[in-house]
Amino acid sequence: MVTALEYAQSHHEQFLEQLEAFVRIPSVSTDPAHAEDVRRAAEWLADDMRRIGITAEIVPTKGHPIVYGEWLGAGEPAPTALVYAHYDVQPAIKSDGWDTEPFEPYRVDGKVYGRGVADDKGHSLLVVKALECYLASGTPCPINLKFLIEGEEESGSANFATFVRENTERLKADTCIVADSGLTRADQPDIYYGIRGITSVEFRVRGPKTDLHSGVHGGYVHNPAQVVAEMVAKLHNDDGSVAVPGFYDTVRLLPEAERAELNKNDLTAQDWADFVGAPQAWGEPGYTLLERATTRPTLEINGISGGYAGDGMKTVIPAQASAKITCRLVADQKPEQIGALVRDYLYQIVPPTVTLEVEVHAGGEPVTVPIDSAPVQALVRAFRYHWDAAPHFKRTGGTLPILSVFQEELKLPSVMLGFSLVDSGIHGPNEHFHIDLFYKGLDTLIVLYEELAVS
Amino acid sequence: MVTALEYAQSHHEQFLEQLEAFVRIPSVSTDPAHAEDVRRAAEWLADDMRRIGITAEIVPTKGHPIVYGEWLGAGEPAPTALVYAHYDVQPAIKSDGWDTEPFEPYRVDGKVYGRGVADDKGHSLLVVKALECYLASGTPCPINLKFLIEGEEESGSANFATFVRENTERLKADTCIVADSGLTRADQPDIYYGIRGITSVEFRVRGPKTDLHSGVHGGYVHNPAQVVAEMVAKLHNDDGSVAVPGFYDTVRLLPEAERAELNKNDLTAQDWADFVGAPQAWGEPGYTLLERATTRPTLEINGISGGYAGDGMKTVIPAQASAKITCRLVADQKPEQIGALVRDYLYQIVPPTVTLEVEVHAGGEPVTVPIDSAPVQALVRAFRYHWDAAPHFKRTGGTLPILSVFQEELKLPSVMLGFSLVDSGIHGPNEHFHIDLFYKGLDTLIVLYEELAVS
Repeated sequence: MVTALEYAQSHHEQFLEQLEAFVRIPSVSTDPAHAEDVRRAAEWLADDMRRIGITAEIVPTKGHPIVYGEWLGAGEPAPTALVYAHYDVQPAIKSDGWDTEPFEPYRVDGKVYGRGVADDKGHSLLVVKALECYLASGTPCPINLKFLIEGEEESGSANFATFVRENTERLKADTCIVADSGLTRADQPDIYYGIRGITSVEFRVRGPKTDLHSGVHGGYVHNPAQVVAEMVAKLHNDDGSVAVPGFYDTVRLLPEAERAELNKNDLTAQDWADFVGAPQAWGEPGYTLLERATTRPTLEINGISGGYAGDGMKTVIPAQASAKITCRLVADQKPEQIGALVRDYLYQIVPPTVTLEVEVHAGGEPVTVPIDSAPVQALVRAFRYHWDAAPHFKRTGGTLPILSVFQEELKLPSVMLGFSLVDSGIHGPNEHFHIDLFYKGLDTLIVLYEELAVS
Repeated sequence: MVTALEYAQSHHEQFLEQLEAFVRIPSVSTDPAHAEDVRRAAEWLADDMRRIGITAEIVPTKGHPIVYGEWLGAGEPAPTALVYAHYDVQPAIKSDGWDTEPFEPYRVDGKVYGRGVADDKGHSLLVVKALECYLASGTPCPINLKFLIEGEEESGSANFATFVRENTERLKADTCIVADSGLTRADQPDIYYGIRGITSVEFRVRGPKTDLHSGVHGGYVHNPAQVVAEMVAKLHNDDGSVAVPGFYDTVRLLPEAERAELNKNDLTAQDWADFVGAPQAWGEPGYTLLERATTRPTLEINGISGGYAGDGMKTVIPAQASAKITCRLVADQKPEQIGALVRDYLYQIVPPTVTLEVEVHAGGEPVTVPIDSAPVQALVRAFRYHWDAAPHFKRTGGTLPILSVFQEELKLPSVMLGFSLVDSGIHGPNEHFHIDLFYKGLDTLIVLYEELAVS
């Protein structure tokens, strides 16, 4: 392993240049105009894998391809890790607020800038380069590796679950590494062990058969824009808790020790103000800011619309109005179950003056990774190579549907990791990766592959 | 007068062809691309006035011109009527649901179709043709006439009040005829004697400094889309009445006799269902459907918007959300006063988690025309020429800002009239005018000009 780490050390510049070459391919998966670029990025990555000695394949899907690579050279008794990352990126154009062209990477102040450097091309490359450091230095890699690098993460991983479900035998492994997260501070390792699930509900109310003149008809018809507002207002109690009956029934409360541990990293009022910038915090009473956004379920209005939204006024009673809702879920809430509760409640509160349509979309399960599981503990040890501080165990309020796919379909213990900082412009302008964290991440992965063999 | 009526009878086809020619000019005042067409329509009308013997002028405004015509041949002791109509029209394209091209008029089943035939080119032409029947037939017209035909009614009459205010001497008259309404049934004359006023309020709440990821941040920030809904929901009481404190304080109650008279024309449940098509009626308790929409003040949500409104889902907490409100007012509510009450209430109910911006726009006064006034009684008599039924006295829930301008600036007794049917597609597709009502309207105006001299 030492030789692998030495190899890493002596190839820093080369690996960084490879990242820059990878980033130059604008593999924006949400934009059909970039389909060929997405394809090119998949080929670039598969070629690099093959050069290293990985058996790589570009697997077509109904959407963008998956890059699947296998290196099973550690042999039968050694454990196998399935490594997930994604090579597609968010859209980016300079006028979004970038200082330079997003797909022309450059380095300044110890950071490398470019769309996808952090999310998630940097990590896609690091997991492969860590194996390269073993293979190219002649150090035996102690574990087998299966790389599953998808091209549709930013567009919803539409074909990912199907691929996993249809390839459970091929993807068989002992542990799963999901390399798509980050650190809050450069000097502090973070291990995310909990994510929230999601369920999405859209509803629409229809009143008059057409838009009506609000002067001529105002007063005797229940305005759908008003009805939607009145229904949305009933989704929360005055104290900020969710008013949908049964919403909290299946929520498993966190052990006090875990709450205390988590709350060591609670946001201060100042952190919150810097981060959010709203006049005052809000939310479910009895929980810290951190808990509200990570360990408690929520119901958010992602969109509300009805009537005229242009400049000036239009005196209209809209024929219809609608709202889009997502709930973030925690164990043991089930997406279908919560979606049904919200739907039923909407039917309960809708007034008889309108008709209601509700659509519940497929969701994602909340996932919690046991902290004492083998891969998590291996990562704890791997972090020690570069960091003095013990990792913070954290939860995120977001959802990682692929994690629930791994958990449901493959029944694998998982660990989430990442080395870019959370404020590194992911999904926004001037995305960057701190170069020293990129190198530290590489070493940490080399050590992790070793530690996974030990555990 | 008999000769004028005979002249009308013998020129039906010619006048209808003139209407068709007028309608072929797409004088859409809301669309800058049609500015030249609006100008052409003004010229067409002014030319026709001059041909008849009216002194006509195209008065430029900051927007579209006003056509002003004077015929003062009745002399000094005869009364003068100021006649209002408008030559601009609503936008229309065939794909809005028209059976044929909206600006290529055609006749079928006793109706003439085309954008603007009813609203308001038909009436613009009729008021002029009535005078032509006098002048061309050699019958002395018993009153002087001042025609004020504007080109911005459909775009808010932005420059109309200024023109009236700056020309009070020139516009001096004894009565005012506003020729821009209609009839509910062909066999029943209607006289509108009351209109509601209006005040417009827009508000916007701002929460986080940018749109936030609703997974990462959901739970500790008060979502602006939710806040707008919660505020809108507080604008009405559960029973449908307006919850803004003081909203009803200045409302003058109608005498019971007037209520009883009005309610003879109350909508049946079936009328309402045919007209509106919503599952169930709604509104302020204690008032009939008709009263709710005409004699009672209202608060309508004309638009609500915040967050994502496209297809599918976007997991966003919007940085801001907004709503557009109009209140319809009745005597003695003042637009500025009610606008201020709504604004103050919004500031009272806004939670401390967001910032609020409120904009109150200029409004229009409610107007009631005394039924026993001279011009109204002259119209009652004029209707007898073609109709057996006595006129129904009605109120409309809409607002006619120009009527309050006439009332405020010129202190003129007014009468509103119109001969198209209310379901004639005004502002919608397949706008039409019943040809026999067009001719009856012409005769009625000829008789009205005579009756105004009598009164």
